[in-house]
Amino acid sequence: MPTMPAPFTTDDYRARMARAADAAAEAGLAGVLVAPGPDLVHLTGYRPVSTERLTMLVLAADREPVLVVPTLEAPDAEEAAGAAAFTVRDWTDGKDPYAVTAPLLDADGRFGVSDNTWAMHLLGLQRQLPGTSYTSLTEALPMLRAVKDAHELALIEAAGAAADETYHEILKVRFAGRGEAEVAADLAALLKQFGHSQVDFTVVGSGPNGANPHHEAGDRTILHGDMVVLDFGGLKHGYGSDTSRTVHVGEPTPAEQHVHDVVREAQQAGFEAVRPGVACQEIDRAAREIIEEAGYGDLFIHRTGHGIGVTTHEPPYMIEGEEQSLIPGMCFSVEPGIYLPGRFGVRIEDIVTVTEDGGRRFNNTAREMAIVE
Amino acid sequence: MPTMPAPFTTDDYRARMARAADAAAEAGLAGVLVAPGPDLVHLTGYRPVSTERLTMLVLAADREPVLVVPTLEAPDAEEAAGAAAFTVRDWTDGKDPYAVTAPLLDADGRFGVSDNTWAMHLLGLQRQLPGTSYTSLTEALPMLRAVKDAHELALIEAAGAAADETYHEILKVRFAGRGEAEVAADLAALLKQFGHSQVDFTVVGSGPNGANPHHEAGDRTILHGDMVVLDFGGLKHGYGSDTSRTVHVGEPTPAEQHVHDVVREAQQAGFEAVRPGVACQEIDRAAREIIEEAGYGDLFIHRTGHGIGVTTHEPPYMIEGEEQSLIPGMCFSVEPGIYLPGRFGVRIEDIVTVTEDGGRRFNNTAREMAIVE
Repeated sequence: MPTMPAPFTTDDYRARMARAADAAAEAGLAGVLVAPGPDLVHLTGYRPVSTERLTMLVLAADREPVLVVPTLEAPDAEEAAGAAAFTVRDWTDGKDPYAVTAPLLDADGRFGVSDNTWAMHLLGLQRQLPGTSYTSLTEALPMLRAVKDAHELALIEAAGAAADETYHEILKVRFAGRGEAEVAADLAALLKQFGHSQVDFTVVGSGPNGANPHHEAGDRTILHGDMVVLDFGGLKHGYGSDTSRTVHVGEPTPAEQHVHDVVREAQQAGFEAVRPGVACQEIDRAAREIIEEAGYGDLFIHRTGHGIGVTTHEPPYMIEGEEQSLIPGMCFSVEPGIYLPGRFGVRIEDIVTVTEDGGRRFNNTAREMAIVE
Repeated sequence: MPTMPAPFTTDDYRARMARAADAAAEAGLAGVLVAPGPDLVHLTGYRPVSTERLTMLVLAADREPVLVVPTLEAPDAEEAAGAAAFTVRDWTDGKDPYAVTAPLLDADGRFGVSDNTWAMHLLGLQRQLPGTSYTSLTEALPMLRAVKDAHELALIEAAGAAADETYHEILKVRFAGRGEAEVAADLAALLKQFGHSQVDFTVVGSGPNGANPHHEAGDRTILHGDMVVLDFGGLKHGYGSDTSRTVHVGEPTPAEQHVHDVVREAQQAGFEAVRPGVACQEIDRAAREIIEEAGYGDLFIHRTGHGIGVTTHEPPYMIEGEEQSLIPGMCFSVEPGIYLPGRFGVRIEDIVTVTEDGGRRFNNTAREMAIVE
């Protein structure tokens, strides 16, 4: 694994944009409209902030890619890693950016629009071109970024290894008597130490706080006897990490140990279900079945997993109803949990990639409950 | 000015939501739909991150406010500062969140939807309720957050004072021979030192980089003889600061001094045009006229200003075509600039509030060109 991986090339970006345009045409779409965000990063290497000023990449099978940008951001757009693969069309404050974009679109076409496009921009296009219709990119082309190439897999593996190093180190810090936010700060510092440029979340859910799967880290002082959910990740070299382990301050009770064992078995079952051709929902079912059989079905209140790539949460989702088949190169979390309101929570999570032979984990720390001080 | 201002109360949030619902009814709308972001912070005090999971506040004149949230985020929503003023309705992974939201909406109503709502959520509602129609909140109720109350004005004034202290201190640091990014880091540290919780931008545009108004700060080493645009701000106690000054490393040339004088005169003219009842575009015209008369009209490539509040960029915009009248309590930037490609740029910016008697500046550092080392 190189310390500083080679950057993506203009050809990489050109190929991604061509693939997206082709996939859109195959799906019966006139094109793809991409606002600032992860899709734009993936397709062009350009990372502006979403604002009220329209920035939008227009892709169609029979045209060259065009990036519509505010005039004052044009110099930045022209410095993007993939800039040689698209044309910039700029608009100046005071002009209607939707009127500038409209000539690039078929007036009666159906377009895939990136999920996080601002509603005001979609409404501007709908008003300018009333004959057009739209579908979210995740709905139309859910797997646009889902299958990673070898270069991307190496980056996600490296991010996972850094998260694992973070976990090894966090086991050495003191938990009892410290605030959750202090341990969270330790996690953030470790992720950065091991090469992350961005920390997206550092969940430290101690005792009853662990029973809220979206709790981040608060003022609560961690006590001896607490179960503590740790869930942390971010971006290293532009690709995501995300892992969870649940540790215990001192010895667990038999009841705590039992819940942890159930989650660990569920996580293993979800992992073992991974192989090409299996529907995403089967990963959720495999993990959920274990938890339901143990009688905790109502306390597993989220999906089993989500994809990861240039973001830490993206398709494919491991959720009931998702019939998409797994394809080699997909990367996603397997993270069942059990949440006992007012008491504690347990979650165990690895990033898994699909290979021809089954799943391969990018997180490989021990999944047994670690005892911390 | 208290060091730690009193928090907003449930009554503050209830009043804001009622005002928004009433304003929507007056504008002929069936209601207001608010996704995570500054509108939601303003209306409820709740600050979740925008994701593919629907979170949406539904306001209508004849109903109690309802916040639709993913089940696993419900505990966080119930801890929001304004939580006592709304009801939470949660939906679980695997359910259709738009089907959960639909019963709260008139099936043939027209709704204002917050600008930054994800397109996928708007498309989900449009699909679920094909008889509804939508307009962006900024278009329908552009002045929803524009007129600040006394408590808010005090917070914006305090943020401005902190930015001014930052400017005073940055004049003491060395510029020549250091990278733009180093000076930008100084600015960020100073903003935090003077009480900012969040730094939104620290532009250091030296020499030719100053001619790109959206340049942030790069690798370029600042040289003796450079003009340097400084533009920085963020949030202090939840409210924004944003000020620009253009400094010179050593003595300027007469040509540089002339351009700076023109921008300063334009900024003063824009400021002096501020009074209740004047249209926003008149502020832009007043500043632009000075620059055009000096022959630099083509080089002033952005609007003259933007509102500020719980964000650092929001309505009202000081731009040609904006006929909204100024109202006492509005707060916005006045920031004309001249950008000479390949050479340098000049921008001078203050936050100004509208009083019964005219404009009042929240940035009060010297606008003459400072000489730095």
